[in-house]
Amino acid sequence: MSTLPFPASVYAARLARASSLAAESGLDAIIVGPGPDLQYLLGVEGDTIERLTALVIGPDIAPTVVVPRMELAKVRTTAVGELGLAVADWVDGEDPYALVTEAVDTVSRVGVSDALPALHVVPIGERLGVRLELATPVLREGRMIKDAEEIAELRRAGDAIDAVHRRVPEWLRAGRTEREVAAEIAEAIVAEGHRTVEFVIVGSGPNGADPHHEVSDRMIEEGDTVVVDIGGAVPSGYNSDSTRTYVVGSPDPEAAERIAVLVRAQQAAVDAVRPGATAAQVDAAARDVLAAAGLGEAFLHRTGHGIGVSVHEEPYIAPGNDLVLREGMAFSIEPGIYFAGAWGARIEDIVIVTADGGERLNVAPHELVSVGAHAIGS
Amino acid sequence: MSTLPFPASVYAARLARASSLAAESGLDAIIVGPGPDLQYLLGVEGDTIERLTALVIGPDIAPTVVVPRMELAKVRTTAVGELGLAVADWVDGEDPYALVTEAVDTVSRVGVSDALPALHVVPIGERLGVRLELATPVLREGRMIKDAEEIAELRRAGDAIDAVHRRVPEWLRAGRTEREVAAEIAEAIVAEGHRTVEFVIVGSGPNGADPHHEVSDRMIEEGDTVVVDIGGAVPSGYNSDSTRTYVVGSPDPEAAERIAVLVRAQQAAVDAVRPGATAAQVDAAARDVLAAAGLGEAFLHRTGHGIGVSVHEEPYIAPGNDLVLREGMAFSIEPGIYFAGAWGARIEDIVIVTADGGERLNVAPHELVSVGAHAIGS
Repeated sequence: MSTLPFPASVYAARLARASSLAAESGLDAIIVGPGPDLQYLLGVEGDTIERLTALVIGPDIAPTVVVPRMELAKVRTTAVGELGLAVADWVDGEDPYALVTEAVDTVSRVGVSDALPALHVVPIGERLGVRLELATPVLREGRMIKDAEEIAELRRAGDAIDAVHRRVPEWLRAGRTEREVAAEIAEAIVAEGHRTVEFVIVGSGPNGADPHHEVSDRMIEEGDTVVVDIGGAVPSGYNSDSTRTYVVGSPDPEAAERIAVLVRAQQAAVDAVRPGATAAQVDAAARDVLAAAGLGEAFLHRTGHGIGVSVHEEPYIAPGNDLVLREGMAFSIEPGIYFAGAWGARIEDIVIVTADGGERLNVAPHELVSVGAHAIGS
Repeated sequence: MSTLPFPASVYAARLARASSLAAESGLDAIIVGPGPDLQYLLGVEGDTIERLTALVIGPDIAPTVVVPRMELAKVRTTAVGELGLAVADWVDGEDPYALVTEAVDTVSRVGVSDALPALHVVPIGERLGVRLELATPVLREGRMIKDAEEIAELRRAGDAIDAVHRRVPEWLRAGRTEREVAAEIAEAIVAEGHRTVEFVIVGSGPNGADPHHEVSDRMIEEGDTVVVDIGGAVPSGYNSDSTRTYVVGSPDPEAAERIAVLVRAQQAAVDAVRPGATAAQVDAAARDVLAAAGLGEAFLHRTGHGIGVSVHEEPYIAPGNDLVLREGMAFSIEPGIYFAGAWGARIEDIVIVTADGGERLNVAPHELVSVGAHAIGS
């Protein structure tokens, strides 16, 4: 029983590409632990846990998977089984690091995946007697550029989360708590086609001023602006992530004006997306619009992050990131403005870099959406 | 608004103890990333993400928290705020590793927490110019020995999950899928007093033979044995984890006999728990009973794992682990037997090491529980 979203040949190509990129970077071996890199390369899902699972690849290494025997049946349902990769299994009480050392053989430069925890990084480094490097530059290369099938999955995820945002007015109103609203949104995330709910942020009134607020028992009040930032993974494992800002009843006129500036800032960043532009230039496009309106200090974070089998990945759309955008990259554009103790707003779409520009995958209305009994005042 | 389950003084004592244990181990500094260690030391929850959050402690270091500015408000609601710890915040585009280097100052031996991902371990090691060590031996020391308040929380979690197991016969019957049963169990986990559902395993028939099977759309059939392994975190963050094996209708007589052996094996391991015994001795107690009945090969994993603010932590009750048990340790005792393609069974309680033995926190019936229309046949 395969649980793979793509044919085995896709994973074979991804492995071959990673090995060849490793060779170009001068890496003799790469050790990939559970996390999005392993999901991308083999379709192996699951979090990093205390028992070591790791894929060892390299220009002169036959791909080998070190895996606890109790995970073996599940791992065989992935590309590991379909491609007939070498497996080195171990049971509690045995030493998994010896299996890694055997697979790596004698080498000088070894990279590890981002997500591998210190629990495994430190002993692997000691056994191999080398200073481990990050394999990020090699591994991100494949994951950053989405092929047509991956873009189709991101589009599916975008449509599903748009459908949820269009229904938010059914649930968001004065007199309910953020948590009550979030529970209905979470149900809808699944009902609209996601396999998992990855996050539901409902930041009402002053809670909206904290970019990483999740939910609370705060009662939503008439006049509140409410930041709703939601996402999940569709069955293939690809993620959605979209934010809209709502107002209960009529907005404060100054808030409405500032949110209109934010919508323009978000549009400016989307307009700046094209192959050849840098991540920093896209970030600056949003930042400049906000700064020109005196809102520069209110924008506390970067403009966006890549998305795929993980919710946050390369490329990061941030100041100082000179990475050059290429066709097939996918990332969020999500400027926000935050006024501590008062309110906040954020507008977020996933954008794909096309041959000559950028395409939004989220098209639910971007403007401040009024919910509840009263019509919007401005 | 504090979200702390314990008074700030508890966290102050935990920090002081960790610093003094670091000194005893010859570590000049410890860098603790998000994960259970940070939850234990400061009440800071949350997963490891790409933006660095880290606590730096050490015998000659004033505890300092490096944190993204957008996380600052949330971090201040933890012991970081209540204890007035030094904070070094940073925004996207700035270099968080420079803040770690400043806080650590000049040192020779530096430890990192288990959960810190390679993404941060590698650059921190490069900046400090030292080979990082695992701080596990220091950090596990505090977390392994539970005080009275922590035991009270584990007991609360144990009672809550027992209440769910007692209700499993309401939902488990032939003609329903594992997924349908799991959904009702998940609701009950929250209804019975947990804040989060951490995992729901419903392994029916042949799926029970995979120790890490979660759920599937398999239809449960008359005569199936079903492994139900469930847990969640109560509001304080402490976890439950308990497994029972059920049978739909009447069990196969040979299966019933083998499961009776398993119940004896689990009891033997619980009986072996006392201060002074080793983890390996407790593991062997279960293993010996199964081996004597010819079931040694069917037991694929270790006997148990510690539990607290994480579901899996030290001490591991495994072959070869000579760690000596002490009063206040808390861990699972969960032998299992697995017959590939046919069926499996597992019985799991959380056990606390008391002054002169072990105390089970889970007391729902251990024997094979028959559910559905028919009475148990043997």
